[in-house]
Amino acid sequence: MKTLIVHAHPEPKSLNGSLKDLAVSTLEAAGHEVRVSDLYAMGWKAVVDAADYGPEASSPLQVARDSGRAFEGGTLTPDVRAEQEKLLWADTVIFQFPLWWYSMPAILKGWVDRVFTFRFAYGVGEHSDTKYGERYGEGTLAGRKALLSVTIGGQESHYGARGINGPIEDLLFPIHHGILYYPGIEAVPPFVVYGADRMTAEDYPDVAKAWERRLLTLESTEPIPFRRQNFGDYEMPSLQLKEGLEPAGRTGFGLHVRG
Amino acid sequence: MKTLIVHAHPEPKSLNGSLKDLAVSTLEAAGHEVRVSDLYAMGWKAVVDAADYGPEASSPLQVARDSGRAFEGGTLTPDVRAEQEKLLWADTVIFQFPLWWYSMPAILKGWVDRVFTFRFAYGVGEHSDTKYGERYGEGTLAGRKALLSVTIGGQESHYGARGINGPIEDLLFPIHHGILYYPGIEAVPPFVVYGADRMTAEDYPDVAKAWERRLLTLESTEPIPFRRQNFGDYEMPSLQLKEGLEPAGRTGFGLHVRG
Repeated sequence: MKTLIVHAHPEPKSLNGSLKDLAVSTLEAAGHEVRVSDLYAMGWKAVVDAADYGPEASSPLQVARDSGRAFEGGTLTPDVRAEQEKLLWADTVIFQFPLWWYSMPAILKGWVDRVFTFRFAYGVGEHSDTKYGERYGEGTLAGRKALLSVTIGGQESHYGARGINGPIEDLLFPIHHGILYYPGIEAVPPFVVYGADRMTAEDYPDVAKAWERRLLTLESTEPIPFRRQNFGDYEMPSLQLKEGLEPAGRTGFGLHVRG
Repeated sequence: MKTLIVHAHPEPKSLNGSLKDLAVSTLEAAGHEVRVSDLYAMGWKAVVDAADYGPEASSPLQVARDSGRAFEGGTLTPDVRAEQEKLLWADTVIFQFPLWWYSMPAILKGWVDRVFTFRFAYGVGEHSDTKYGERYGEGTLAGRKALLSVTIGGQESHYGARGINGPIEDLLFPIHHGILYYPGIEAVPPFVVYGADRMTAEDYPDVAKAWERRLLTLESTEPIPFRRQNFGDYEMPSLQLKEGLEPAGRTGFGLHVRG
């Protein structure tokens, strides 16, 4: 595999830092190529602004249009171009981050906001009444696989089907489906460590072993079977799931998972 | 009302900028007090790091613990203390932002990550086998109301119950419930403008009129009736919703809405 690890934690000696280091050593020892975007170490700029689009920044700024022009003209900032190039190089992307307020840390959201520009990650392909772009299973990054490795301070039961925080698969749906699958990346089920705030040194070996297992079986792990947009499951142009396709009783985000 | 508007768009002349300006003028004309945190104009630092916790930053950094110590010791950075003070002053908070990749722009997520510290927004109250903190309906910010004002490039049908992006109420649940209701803020249904990327000057007056109506009826608008954590609806200590409380067929995030 050619693996890009996008890492988002401010402390190298944290659990997240250890899991990132273990991913690098485990994958390299197994003969895979690895590149790392350690966002804190890189001093990643988290915030979209006019400076991102250089001469293509219009006044007033139009984020979607200007980012697409800068992408097409090759005038995006070098930090963003480098990340797009890494994504095109990789066949596998691992995201290592703590769940903060039920989502990514801001630095990682800012990586998505800045790197996933118009014409690169969205606004790709024909947009008409009969087709609404190449997205959800197609797009610039199709053929790639992703894995979220997430640490969570709280307890697993709080994230279960009836848990107070909401099911973890629903909390991660906007990332798995909305961010990754949108430009074509297929996500495998996440690696989640619960109770991270109360973990002790004695707990770590079991976590590390489980993480190594996930890494070494990643190539053969089946992705979450999201429905593809342009292959008959959705009405056009409303993009509503056609009636009757879902298993009985399934609603919400789960409608967009096959079978 | 004492209203704090947290605004997150890089372009003052954008739709978001206009809606923010209209909220200020409409509320002030109606006799309400308004303060604005315009995150881009403030140059808001989006990224949590050791510098946030001053002398309380331990090595290795422990984000939750160190942020709580700095909060309790009054040594959080002035920018974060100012935002916490605004939240305590306000009885109403309006968030104005574009939906980027199905969530907040990074600069706003970074406002949450940095301002919602341990002991201020979480880690409040007794944590034991019989109680897991004052959260979800209780907490430091209880008694306050919030309204998300969100612009969305895509079309409304894509965000409906069967829409490909997922229902808008589920996409916003991690904000309404996970970020706002957690420390006690009750969210009213959001104000959402769809098709924002294709809006013309002719479309704006209708949007503005609808926004004014929402602002002027905000005091009497009922919040989303999320279930309170500590009033009998959840098993302890698992914090799973008790069997049979939900309307037939309801699953996922919707379980945590009453009735």
